[in-house]
Amino acid sequence: MSNLQLDANGRLRHFLAIEGLNREILTEILDTAESFAGVTEQNVKKVPLLRGKTIVNLFFEASTRTRTTFELAAKRLSADVLNINVSVSSTVKGETLLDTLRNLEAMHSDMFVVRHSDSGAAHFMARHVRPHVSVINAGDGRHSHPTQAMLDMFTIRRHKNDFENLTVAIVGDILHSRVARSQIQALNMLGTGEVRVVAPRTLLPTAVEALGVVPFNRLEDGIRGADVVITLRLQKERMRGALLPSELEYFQLYGLTEKRLQAAKDDAIFMHPGPINRGVEMDSQVADGPRSVILQQVTHGIAVRMAVMSLAMRHAGEGETD
Amino acid sequence: MSNLQLDANGRLRHFLAIEGLNREILTEILDTAESFAGVTEQNVKKVPLLRGKTIVNLFFEASTRTRTTFELAAKRLSADVLNINVSVSSTVKGETLLDTLRNLEAMHSDMFVVRHSDSGAAHFMARHVRPHVSVINAGDGRHSHPTQAMLDMFTIRRHKNDFENLTVAIVGDILHSRVARSQIQALNMLGTGEVRVVAPRTLLPTAVEALGVVPFNRLEDGIRGADVVITLRLQKERMRGALLPSELEYFQLYGLTEKRLQAAKDDAIFMHPGPINRGVEMDSQVADGPRSVILQQVTHGIAVRMAVMSLAMRHAGEGETD
Amino acid sequence: MSNLQLDANGRLRHFLAIEGLNREILTEILDTAESFAGVTEQNVKKVPLLRGKTIVNLFFEASTRTRTTFELAAKRLSADVLNINVSVSSTVKGETLLDTLRNLEAMHSDMFVVRHSDSGAAHFMARHVRPHVSVINAGDGRHSHPTQAMLDMFTIRRHKNDFENLTVAIVGDILHSRVARSQIQALNMLGTGEVRVVAPRTLLPTAVEALGVVPFNRLEDGIRGADVVITLRLQKERMRGALLPSELEYFQLYGLTEKRLQAAKDDAIFMHPGPINRGVEMDSQVADGPRSVILQQVTHGIAVRMAVMSLAMRHAGEGETD
Repeated sequence: MSNLQLDANGRLRHFLAIEGLNREILTEILDTAESFAGVTEQNVKKVPLLRGKTIVNLFFEASTRTRTTFELAAKRLSADVLNINVSVSSTVKGETLLDTLRNLEAMHSDMFVVRHSDSGAAHFMARHVRPHVSVINAGDGRHSHPTQAMLDMFTIRRHKNDFENLTVAIVGDILHSRVARSQIQALNMLGTGEVRVVAPRTLLPTAVEALGVVPFNRLEDGIRGADVVITLRLQKERMRGALLPSELEYFQLYGLTEKRLQAAKDDAIFMHPGPINRGVEMDSQVADGPRSVILQQVTHGIAVRMAVMSLAMRHAGEGETD
Repeated sequence: MSNLQLDANGRLRHFLAIEGLNREILTEILDTAESFAGVTEQNVKKVPLLRGKTIVNLFFEASTRTRTTFELAAKRLSADVLNINVSVSSTVKGETLLDTLRNLEAMHSDMFVVRHSDSGAAHFMARHVRPHVSVINAGDGRHSHPTQAMLDMFTIRRHKNDFENLTVAIVGDILHSRVARSQIQALNMLGTGEVRVVAPRTLLPTAVEALGVVPFNRLEDGIRGADVVITLRLQKERMRGALLPSELEYFQLYGLTEKRLQAAKDDAIFMHPGPINRGVEMDSQVADGPRSVILQQVTHGIAVRMAVMSLAMRHAGEGETD
Repeated sequence: MSNLQLDANGRLRHFLAIEGLNREILTEILDTAESFAGVTEQNVKKVPLLRGKTIVNLFFEASTRTRTTFELAAKRLSADVLNINVSVSSTVKGETLLDTLRNLEAMHSDMFVVRHSDSGAAHFMARHVRPHVSVINAGDGRHSHPTQAMLDMFTIRRHKNDFENLTVAIVGDILHSRVARSQIQALNMLGTGEVRVVAPRTLLPTAVEALGVVPFNRLEDGIRGADVVITLRLQKERMRGALLPSELEYFQLYGLTEKRLQAAKDDAIFMHPGPINRGVEMDSQVADGPRSVILQQVTHGIAVRMAVMSLAMRHAGEGETD
């Protein structure tokens, strides 16, 4: 996997998962995102880095929110963007993923941003694209959502500078969350002091310690002394599977309130990948409170995606003669 | 409401309703639209006024026609445009309007063009956006559709120059029409000689005279001597509610024909917000006749929307340092 | 029809069908596409030819694949593109095709790319647009799909240089295929040595020889000695109409395999308009084999559409004074 994401010089070529990357690459993404964070605050929010490039948002799962951030990131890099929602198009005619890929590639697409319900779909594409084409994983099954993890790292670094002395608690359905998986890997790769996961036993993977985390079942224990508290979005469809109590019961056990958050450090920040279920994962006082950085996460999402896109396309202009 | 739409210097900041504006602002919009009308006739129909700005078409009600005119207006001002149809996206996941707004804002959106089935949705958003963000109402419930009213004013002014001596008749379902509401306010604000409304009693608001109009129930009476005849689109779903007779009966009572229009002035113009139900609001001879300015309304819609967008964004480049 | 597609100087103005054009025009399209093929391989894949022009993709039938190629072609010519899927918009409100056209035209659209299930829809529009507006047919009913035919011609010319000495075999449902119709006309107009059609009797038009083709019922006979073998996409819905045997039986009789293709010339190329039904029209060994040029067809589709668009818009900058 390491080879697949990096080029011969060890530089980012595809961005598929945190796994297989290294601290230098993650730091380069964060540093590059820092420079783009300035661009998005300018009066004219565009840089010509990817002018004339064609970026295809290839979404096999609907997600307006994620698609929108990638579309904005691409446009602010001056690329041309094609949005393709595959559920309503060629797969209807029985075309395979590989044929769809080959066809879009034949139109001289330069980059695919892929979301798919199957774990491994982005890797599959990366293994099959032509040498100059890059693939960015925008979420695949339960496996990985690496740009979400990196915008979270960016947000943490902006507030806390250094990962070494931090205690970060991730609260919610760890078992089914591709976001949690990617966050845990990134936090550990960046050398975070302690990474905790907080969930009922039914929502923790077996032998979760092997991921490099400390598990907790009680919320108050898990967030005690934490610098960063990340809550995951509750997938309501899990309720039906009897893995979870009711929404109300979930809130009573794991929902963040100002009172409960007193257990965390005074200057702790609170994060959530959005969209929030108010009154389920947290109450509005926390969501909209002074230590919530949830909207900053959204803002940073654009800068981080611009960074990943431009780094992965760095090679594009090099080997060519015109 | 006046304060909400205007900045501290009394200049346009949001465009939510005609109500609360004043004749100077309306005239400034019309004058600015006049300059953009030239742009849309050029060979290269683009001006760089809003380059690097992000304009979000946030449509909670489907309307290809209105969305298209805003999208074209934004592109001709060189802005980046995001089309978001909210019925099929984040509201499905239970996100509130305010959360949707906050998230899009966090992506450094500069302007929201909003259509919503709830009256007041655009005002709600304008009350909550950050200082540099503008909101344009593209139709909210039965309340207001101010850009439609302004393109109508622009069309009237181009043909008749002065509002003072005009008699304008609005024909159709006044009671349920946000277009009529906005037209009446704009016509009165611009000092129109006489504004008439023509409809069956069931489709007129009670005490309609308080809006500054003269009501008529018979078409021939209402359009006698009129300089401008505006017919509203018949919402067919009203039929079911028994507020209206059949389409055929409606046409017999209120449908415009060349014969009937002889009651209006010889140089009267005929308008309709589109799309036309031919054989219901008017026959094709009128719709396509020499005094119909219906397609000019569409053309003017682009120029007027460019004007509103650029005026509302005038502040954007001023208070910022980079 | 000839007059409708050409301007007073005999130059391309609309592109509706191969019928009515002539060898000079087709050759000019192929030569122009040759120059654009270079553009799509450049690092910055854009030319400013249609900057400030508005191109409307007006699709009354869903087709992500065809729409995408036109959208990319337009963007690489620097035009602004509007995608309008009419089935979900104004026709719902009962607007006629002509009213839709008039409205989009009133927004100063410069070109319509039209796909419609009714044969003749593009011609209808071309007869009604304003003098400066061009119409491109992106497929109308069973009638015509001329840009597909031209990208096929471009692909053949790139591999075989000259049409005069070629034998080209078209295999599949000739009777219902707008692609086959356009291909046959283009091949004959360009002076192809022999054009063959290969299909069961039920899928051949009566008196098919009048189209300038030699009909065959057995695949092996039809492709014997061929330089080019084009297979058509099998429309699975035809199965139900009992015009076709099962998919498996179709493959046994008409499916291309390496073994069968030994009957064709050694350097024969294999083409398909896509998307392929693997195991129906051909097996994967053929589709992905060294003599398959199917993906090149997709690539050439962009260049050919850029050529058609820019030639049809050539007049746009000439008569205007700005």
